[in-house]
Amino acid sequence: MNAPLKSEELEVGFDIPAAIGMDESAIQTPCLVLDLDALERNVAKMGAIAKEMGVRHRAHGKMHKSVDVALLQEKLGGACGVCCQKVSEAEVFARGGIKDVLVSNQVRDPAKIDRLARIPKLGARTICCVDDLDNVADLSKAAVRHGVQIECLVEIDCGAGRCGVTTTPEVVAIAKAIDAADGLRFAGIQAYQGAMQHLDLYEDRKAKIDIAVAMVADAVKELQAEGLSCDIVGGGGTGSYYFEGTSGVYNELQCGSYAFMDADYGRILDKDGRRIDQGEWENALFILTSVMSHAKAEKAICDAGLKAQSVDSGLPSVFGRDDVEYVKCSDEHGVIADPQGVLKVNEKLRLVPGHCDPTCNVHDWYVGVRSGKVEALWPVSARGKAY
Amino acid sequence: MNAPLKSEELEVGFDIPAAIGMDESAIQTPCLVLDLDALERNVAKMGAIAKEMGVRHRAHGKMHKSVDVALLQEKLGGACGVCCQKVSEAEVFARGGIKDVLVSNQVRDPAKIDRLARIPKLGARTICCVDDLDNVADLSKAAVRHGVQIECLVEIDCGAGRCGVTTTPEVVAIAKAIDAADGLRFAGIQAYQGAMQHLDLYEDRKAKIDIAVAMVADAVKELQAEGLSCDIVGGGGTGSYYFEGTSGVYNELQCGSYAFMDADYGRILDKDGRRIDQGEWENALFILTSVMSHAKAEKAICDAGLKAQSVDSGLPSVFGRDDVEYVKCSDEHGVIADPQGVLKVNEKLRLVPGHCDPTCNVHDWYVGVRSGKVEALWPVSARGKAY
Repeated sequence: MNAPLKSEELEVGFDIPAAIGMDESAIQTPCLVLDLDALERNVAKMGAIAKEMGVRHRAHGKMHKSVDVALLQEKLGGACGVCCQKVSEAEVFARGGIKDVLVSNQVRDPAKIDRLARIPKLGARTICCVDDLDNVADLSKAAVRHGVQIECLVEIDCGAGRCGVTTTPEVVAIAKAIDAADGLRFAGIQAYQGAMQHLDLYEDRKAKIDIAVAMVADAVKELQAEGLSCDIVGGGGTGSYYFEGTSGVYNELQCGSYAFMDADYGRILDKDGRRIDQGEWENALFILTSVMSHAKAEKAICDAGLKAQSVDSGLPSVFGRDDVEYVKCSDEHGVIADPQGVLKVNEKLRLVPGHCDPTCNVHDWYVGVRSGKVEALWPVSARGKAY
Repeated sequence: MNAPLKSEELEVGFDIPAAIGMDESAIQTPCLVLDLDALERNVAKMGAIAKEMGVRHRAHGKMHKSVDVALLQEKLGGACGVCCQKVSEAEVFARGGIKDVLVSNQVRDPAKIDRLARIPKLGARTICCVDDLDNVADLSKAAVRHGVQIECLVEIDCGAGRCGVTTTPEVVAIAKAIDAADGLRFAGIQAYQGAMQHLDLYEDRKAKIDIAVAMVADAVKELQAEGLSCDIVGGGGTGSYYFEGTSGVYNELQCGSYAFMDADYGRILDKDGRRIDQGEWENALFILTSVMSHAKAEKAICDAGLKAQSVDSGLPSVFGRDDVEYVKCSDEHGVIADPQGVLKVNEKLRLVPGHCDPTCNVHDWYVGVRSGKVEALWPVSARGKAY
């Protein structure tokens, strides 16, 4: 019905917020910006920490959903592979060249199980979690049908209150079923305590992980008594990795948010009572936003609202500014309190998102910047891959 | 690095959650499902209401971001066109065949202004809002540069506290500047009271709109005194359209959520004290989700978490069920209280999202169902178009 666009009309900024080499000031907003220096420092630091602890780091790809970031975590951070939460994400990572992929979640739907069983054919070690005996038979059938091996971790609910079994006898029963099933390999235990990651106090977090470690240690011991060894004992997040990593029980960390940071994680305190975004990790992810209206003296309206972020864990903070504050978020707008009237229309601000994971899932691109210039454009490769 | 997929591996369910003709039970979750009967009834009803009130309905496309839904609103609901909030959305609607497109928002960035000025070349009447004299010159230059006409509404902040001017003299000054500017046409007033739409009580909402109507009426009168007539006096939402539509001042409604409904809007009360999702509008939009773990007797874990919805306005409700309740949302999971243990793994539930707009913006597809079969697959055409 409409004439197709001519080539000169297909310019930068049309569906992609920036172009390589562009000044940061020309980036179209709202969009996700990565400070590449900060990202690289975070990634390298976690790699060094895991190495020193003598554990592997399996970077959590459900946070960034980016093949490029996952490959950086392998190359610069020594990550042994990725974990992710959905089969459709695992497909993206496997196709993108990640050779060791854990779906740290249950896969129950028959069509999804069939998709999972195809992933080894893409050249990736394929692992998933199990918390139900019934699932073992379904996974086994699919693995046999496709002539592949699916590795399985038994998931322990060690406090998060979501998927997972809660007793060692259940763990052992499922592990034995996996071990006996054609096409499957028992690979160990998944035990991520998600509910404690955002507790402010280090000691409170430690108390929760102490409980988790005890549960996991008991399961590992009983499995060993049955002749079942755990290649992987995985868990740990940005608020807890030092506990699991030095527990002598876990051997794989699954941190995700450390790489980007966000306002909610940033508020938790390290063992010295210092916010973890003030030394432990750097803010590498920002929502770049522009002021689009300043019709009232004391407040500016910016272009990053609910379509540019998730506010489930609180509003974003304005990076590097204490003279202005993001105070309200509606569908398309953010209200920025500007009591001194310092902001100008079209001025850009860097927002630190309240919660990085669901914020990244809204966007199609990461714009990587260094020294004020756009250096990288990375697709959010697994955006919307929720299946 | 990896071999390309063979054609038999590119099956339904890979990146698209359903196929036409499929049973609803086979749809991949989590995804958005539209009850086409309910949607059509909502759309037709709003069209009939606007007609009876003698006003136009310019359906708000920022809610659904779908060309298909917008065309249905024109065909079945008599909508005069769409409004949307971003230039990149307007591009999608114009290319999709919508001939009358209002960006009910400010356009300030130079690159976005340039993009806006190309939209008339796609065959669509192009309208935007202005709340700042400085913007008039920029819009005028772009319109002249591209040899097009951009129509402009002066935006009044009638209570939402976002963009817009707050006094009649400001309205008149901007309107006169638009009227005098090459390439622009003064087209009227934008006055949407967004902040009151979700007040529970009808009388509370009426009180807020009474204030808005008085502000707008004053501005219209003064504009007329200056020889400036308003082709469009636009505003009104799902919680207020009956006030604006019968005000004698507004002549265009901009309702969006009525078509899909959501849990937050559903809670507000009509003039008889009845929830508006109990008679006024039907729930047409659902997040279809599957139970993926039931390792604890009293709770089921489903696959729709923060990556499948926005919880800014509260958690989803489980449609048609009072025996189970969605009680907690994390990144990838929903916790469903199931006190009687009635849910089974792989059982599907329809969730009514807390807030439809940002929920739709997470998904790539609408799966339209009728009588238990998939009848339509509509892309969320403007998903992620935030520029």
